[in-house]
Formats: sequence, structure tokens, C-alpha cells
Amino acid sequence: MEFTVQSTATQELLDITAQVEDLVAKSKIKEGLCHVYLPHASAAILVNENHDPELCKDVLDALNKVFPDHAGWRHDRIDDNAGAHIKASVLGPSETIPIRNGKLALGRWQAIMLAELDGPRQRQVVVTLLSQ
Amino acid sequence: MEFTVQSTATQELLDITAQVEDLVAKSKIKEGLCHVYLPHASAAILVNENHDPELCKDVLDALNKVFPDHAGWRHDRIDDNAGAHIKASVLGPSETIPIRNGKLALGRWQAIMLAELDGPRQRQVVVTLLSQ
Amino acid sequence: MEFTVQSTATQELLDITAQVEDLVAKSKIKEGLCHVYLPHASAAILVNENHDPELCKDVLDALNKVFPDHAGWRHDRIDDNAGAHIKASVLGPSETIPIRNGKLALGRWQAIMLAELDGPRQRQVVVTLLSQ
Repeated sequence: MEFTVQSTATQELLDITAQVEDLVAKSKIKEGLCHVYLPHASAAILVNENHDPELCKDVLDALNKVFPDHAGWRHDRIDDNAGAHIKASVLGPSETIPIRNGKLALGRWQAIMLAELDGPRQRQVVVTLLSQ
Repeated sequence: MEFTVQSTATQELLDITAQVEDLVAKSKIKEGLCHVYLPHASAAILVNENHDPELCKDVLDALNKVFPDHAGWRHDRIDDNAGAHIKASVLGPSETIPIRNGKLALGRWQAIMLAELDGPRQRQVVVTLLSQ
Repeated sequence: MEFTVQSTATQELLDITAQVEDLVAKSKIKEGLCHVYLPHASAAILVNENHDPELCKDVLDALNKVFPDHAGWRHDRIDDNAGAHIKASVLGPSETIPIRNGKLALGRWQAIMLAELDGPRQRQVVVTLLSQ
């Protein structure tokens, strides 16, 4: 179970909740776990609020202030994207969400977000569902 | 499998290891995985030491120094808790711990902690156990 | 399923991909999840690039700049390793990687790394495989 996402900016948070929920619905699994994985080292998966899209900008601003791009990193001499790798290492490439009654048990203010940190690129999302 | 936790401060780390271990014991699962999930976007789950409770204050101090509340975030104009969302995005809403011989395979210095970042609130904890 | 790793420095990122891939191959599981867990509170698991080993130094440098050791932490009076615990709390003790066609579905630039933050020490790695 996989799908692709095309990012359109250097950095952005892309809401992939609907695509993941669709795979859960098709699986007919009622109770279990949904694992969402990115096979990429300069992007990440996170879960947070997307009701106020301004918050996504805050999250990226905070990450850039703390782990800035182009701050003299050694790897920038080879690929110029060390900042993206560092942020991706801290956020991690996956999140796991419970499945209850055939649906993702996300909280009211939670969305599954692909954090693009070195775009624009086409990103692959690998979803694994396990039944209880 | 769920339980609720009532936080009593704006920020605190609450040890929920005993409640999770109790659910593992009742399940009779001997080998597998225990997934602990918070359906909330302004709190997080982390695993770390709780033998010295002063360390919990250090962890919160470090997070606040790096990702401060009320630092001009856009979302604060709507809900005034952007700092909590940012910290929760970085920490993540879940942790997964192996089950071995019917018990959580936590290390000697590890505890499962609910990181309240925008309390006091009642928080729901969703536990999913998968047998190997 | 467990193996041990001996770190040789106070801080280093150790690539454990080969050891984990070997356990996946021996398991004969074709489709599922591989959970890699550290039962330690002053080390962490992360997934990122290891093709350019300089990037590992960048990741450690970034973490130390943001969450410095010996910065007046309360826990340092007891054990002098609060900085390691703080970094481990943020990075987390585990990562979960999909298994596809009997192999880890890591991206081309992804490796599973043990982040030693308070070494040198012998560290235990607990691997749990679940079939779909």
C-alpha cells in the first residue's frame, strides 16, 4: 500500500490524512494499527493540528530557527541539504495511529502531515496496516 | 483499551507506566508490541527516566528554552497555545514498546510519560497491543 | 530477537542496519513491520542518511547546540548526564520500518542508527517483527 505526493515548495506541511484514511477503509480492518512511513531522509511524518493552517507555518518557523539550513554544516559541501536531514532525523520518518471501528483514531485536532524539508519533490508514502 | 489522565498543571510529565503495564498484564499477550497513543495535539508521549523526578523538570525546561511559548507565533492569535503544538509535533503522539514474557520490555531507567504541554486537562490514552 | 552494540565514544551514531536486516531475513516474514527498540534512556534510535558520514557529525553537532550537555541541569548533580537524557527524550527509543518482499523498505538514503549520547557503553537492541 503506497501512494505518492508531489510537494511544490522547498518546505511545507502537506496533509495526507484523507489518503491514509482511504487505505484504512479499503482494508476492512476494524481494530489495529496504521503505520505511515516515508522512505526519504530529507522529509518526515508528523501528527498535529491542521485546522488553523497558520500553525503549520509556525511549526516550520520553529524548526528552522532551532535547526537552521546552511549553517556551516559539513554535509552542505556535498549536497547542500544538511538542515533538511537534521530536521528529518529529529522528527522521524513515521507515525503509527490506532485503528478503531475501521477508522483512524485521530483526535479532533490531529492530522497526518508529510513535512517536506527539501522540496519540491515527489515523495512516496508507505502504509502498513496490522489487524489486532 | 483506553484510560484517562487528569493533568493538574500547565506543563508536567506524568508517569503512566503502571496503567499501561496493567493493560498488558490483563491482555495475556506474551510477545508482541504495545502502542501508546494520545489523540491530542498539545500533549505528547515520551519514554525516559523518572527515577530522579528533577530530570522531568530539566526536559521541560530544555523544550521551553528551544521551543518557547508565546514567542510571536501566528496560531497564538487564535488559540494562544502554538508553543504546545510545536513541542507536541516534535515529540510525537505515541511510543511503541516491546512486550516480552507478558511484560513491557522497558529498560531499568525507562518510564512511559505523558507530556502535558497545555494543561490542566483531561487526556485520553489509547493503548493497542499486537501479539507476535 | 536481540543483539548488543558496543559504542566507543561519548557520542556517536552507529549504523545498525545490517544487524537488523539480518534478523528480518532469518524471520522469513515477507510483509509486515520491524520495530527496533533501545531499552536505554541516554541513547536513541533514528533513521537517516549514512552515505556521507560527515552528516552524522552534523546531526550530533546540531543536537548539542540545541540541547547542550552540562548546561546547569538539575539531574547533573546526581548523574551528570541530563543532556543525554534530554536528547534521548526528543529523539525517542525506537523506530518502526516496513518489511516488503522480506526486506526492510528503507529508502535509498536511509540507515537505522543507534545514537549513543552517553558512552562508551554496551547497548542492547530489541527487535520485534510482526507479519501482516
